[in-house]
Amino acid sequence: MSISKIFIINRGEIAVRIIRTCKVMGIETILAVSEADQNSLGAKLADRTVVIGPANAAKSYLNIPIIITTALAVGADAIHPGYGFLSEVPELAEACTENNLVYVGPKPDHILKMGNKLVARAIAQESDVPVLPGSEKVSSYEEVIQMIDKIGLPVMLKASAGGGGRGMKIITDNEQVKTVFESASAEAKAAFGDGTMYVEKYIANARHIEVQVLGDQYGNVIHLGERDCSTQRRHQKLVEEAMAPMISEELRQDIRNAAVKLAENISYESAGTVEFIVDQDEEKFYFLEMNTRIQVEHPVTETITGIDLIQEQIHVANGAKLRFTQSDIRFIGHSIECRINAEAPEEGFRPTPGLITKWEIPQGPGIRVDTHCYQGYTVPVFYDSMIAKVIVHGESREHAIRRMLTALDEFMIEGIHTTIPFLKQVLQDEDFSNGHVSTRLLEKIMA
Amino acid sequence: MSISKIFIINRGEIAVRIIRTCKVMGIETILAVSEADQNSLGAKLADRTVVIGPANAAKSYLNIPIIITTALAVGADAIHPGYGFLSEVPELAEACTENNLVYVGPKPDHILKMGNKLVARAIAQESDVPVLPGSEKVSSYEEVIQMIDKIGLPVMLKASAGGGGRGMKIITDNEQVKTVFESASAEAKAAFGDGTMYVEKYIANARHIEVQVLGDQYGNVIHLGERDCSTQRRHQKLVEEAMAPMISEELRQDIRNAAVKLAENISYESAGTVEFIVDQDEEKFYFLEMNTRIQVEHPVTETITGIDLIQEQIHVANGAKLRFTQSDIRFIGHSIECRINAEAPEEGFRPTPGLITKWEIPQGPGIRVDTHCYQGYTVPVFYDSMIAKVIVHGESREHAIRRMLTALDEFMIEGIHTTIPFLKQVLQDEDFSNGHVSTRLLEKIMA
Repeated sequence: MSISKIFIINRGEIAVRIIRTCKVMGIETILAVSEADQNSLGAKLADRTVVIGPANAAKSYLNIPIIITTALAVGADAIHPGYGFLSEVPELAEACTENNLVYVGPKPDHILKMGNKLVARAIAQESDVPVLPGSEKVSSYEEVIQMIDKIGLPVMLKASAGGGGRGMKIITDNEQVKTVFESASAEAKAAFGDGTMYVEKYIANARHIEVQVLGDQYGNVIHLGERDCSTQRRHQKLVEEAMAPMISEELRQDIRNAAVKLAENISYESAGTVEFIVDQDEEKFYFLEMNTRIQVEHPVTETITGIDLIQEQIHVANGAKLRFTQSDIRFIGHSIECRINAEAPEEGFRPTPGLITKWEIPQGPGIRVDTHCYQGYTVPVFYDSMIAKVIVHGESREHAIRRMLTALDEFMIEGIHTTIPFLKQVLQDEDFSNGHVSTRLLEKIMA
Repeated sequence: MSISKIFIINRGEIAVRIIRTCKVMGIETILAVSEADQNSLGAKLADRTVVIGPANAAKSYLNIPIIITTALAVGADAIHPGYGFLSEVPELAEACTENNLVYVGPKPDHILKMGNKLVARAIAQESDVPVLPGSEKVSSYEEVIQMIDKIGLPVMLKASAGGGGRGMKIITDNEQVKTVFESASAEAKAAFGDGTMYVEKYIANARHIEVQVLGDQYGNVIHLGERDCSTQRRHQKLVEEAMAPMISEELRQDIRNAAVKLAENISYESAGTVEFIVDQDEEKFYFLEMNTRIQVEHPVTETITGIDLIQEQIHVANGAKLRFTQSDIRFIGHSIECRINAEAPEEGFRPTPGLITKWEIPQGPGIRVDTHCYQGYTVPVFYDSMIAKVIVHGESREHAIRRMLTALDEFMIEGIHTTIPFLKQVLQDEDFSNGHVSTRLLEKIMA
């Protein structure tokens, strides 16, 4: 079995990203596009595009029957889901298997287990990976209050089926519990079709650190180092970096080893990310969740290791053994990624889709831009607002920050508002420069 | 002494390249532009531009008095010469010193000695670095014949003040000597104002391998590995790579050590390149020349080492010590650079200046583009025809070649002819793929 034609069922920069690696590997690419995405850069670069439905994702990028039918009709032998959309939906992976299509990702069972945050938590505990106090299913606000009695305030209320920050609420006061529980549960139900909630201890001075792992079908698992994604706005990552700054070498190794242990325990295959929350005051880390797909921020890992993660995903999906052992993995320098969104930061980050009238991207040493946009492209109103990722490589974190600032200065976009001015502000913030990142940094900057 | 404002006296992509590093270092940039270069990307990115004269380089980029006067007038504290133009003219370096300006490059004496190929050859011999048989000054065709009697045919006739392939001729037959000598000497005189010629043994099955060295004012010299630049058309490099493929580790180390020995012997400062010719049949290498400046192909070295060479040039020019010892230098993967020229390969590489109506550059993992062009830019008729350099990084040479082919496929240029189709042909050539590069490869492909 060797993949020769991949059906890519995603859009935006990740579609372009996957196409590029396929071309390098000599694999034919068929890109699924919605009616709204027919003019993206991905559509231009793919060997072929197929319109799978209208802009509404439920009728295109989320429609499993149409996707499977189309994949078979075009003679694809594999499906790459990218991130978001169907990338963590076990039914798609199952449908692939049933239809003799290679799913470029882990087994359905991995997706299923890790997709349920409570099951994932149990597996982490089995693997001797620390989990946050609390984290039990709650089905009423009274149960939340009982949990608070046990673990103390503040706590975080989360959707069991959640992701991307939706359905997440901090509770700092017992008075809030009823209202917050009801609205969060309703939000989760609307977003994921499942209103199950759970409660966790809320870490105020927190870092978000995640480990990139890679596994094959033969039980081999390695890590490719960690990323720090603490710089978030409303639980959405904005700036990511590798390696994590300002942590002890001991903590770094412990976090990496914990991720590998968990992935080994479930014989994880493909690329995956084990996310942790680090309590900076206590120098302790806790398992948050595992993402069973490629992440938006994977390029910072590629940059410091020289490894193409999409290539390794495809390689492993082909049934091959990992091409690296842990000792083969070397890290050089420091990498930072900024997500550029079509949003107006000065107007509460209102999305600003529309025609890009000028588009001059930064170039030169240590600069990488992943995007599906170009001059003359219209950012559609239907999807998330990320229009590009700027990734820099520097010999040190300080060097990388300075390169990023130069790159953001060079990035000339007209026609739509973007978050570039806001990102510059973040990078120039004294706490950020000093490596004192935390999930609260943006609140401070925006205050 | 610390440089805070650099006057950049060059054009094209190297001006942009230098500006970018200065910005990252927090150094103000003033760019010298001719009247023909006021719209280049460099002019847009520099903090300030100054028109120093008409398009004719003799009246602008080569005019030392105007350059020094302007540098002082704008309050610059340093001059960066780039490559070409005044980058190997000792008088500029001297004029800088006299006017209390830092010259970002080696001492005038280094430029002077290495600029004279016969002096350079003597220094190589003193340093126990092998030189080609022959290599003595000849002032008449009769002397050439005497040399041929001593070292045998074929021989290469070269201009003592030469560079860039001008004034170089191969002699394979005694009958040719008189005509070839006279035309080559006349060409050298016209090009360099000096008709002095010398004769060297001509190596038919040759590789061009050069070593990047870096020295400081305290006698420290390190190398940053070698580059293979064998793929040349009429002695002009087209494709360069690091590290050199298909040579024994012993030969690789010997060549690197020879370069360091030579540079140490003259207490070389700044970035420099020691060029060697490798006789593939005999597994022997010979000193060719040393370039006392940054090279066009320096990015392949930056790519596999993670070191910004322009930054190190400025660092050393500031009087600082090298920030690396030899053992700090690590190499990751393989890098290839293709020079994209505005030329029509199908019409004998006729230059094709003019308006660029479409300009979409390749992007993504492992891709770097250094250029001064953009959509809407007019390539002027006055200068060399290089419009961009595409640099790729791959985990292996094979991977890098495939990435380069993908990048060249993605590079969309309209309005002018370019050498992209020809470069693709070179990269797909079986000998090139197998690492069997030689200075004769292009003759074969073009036959």
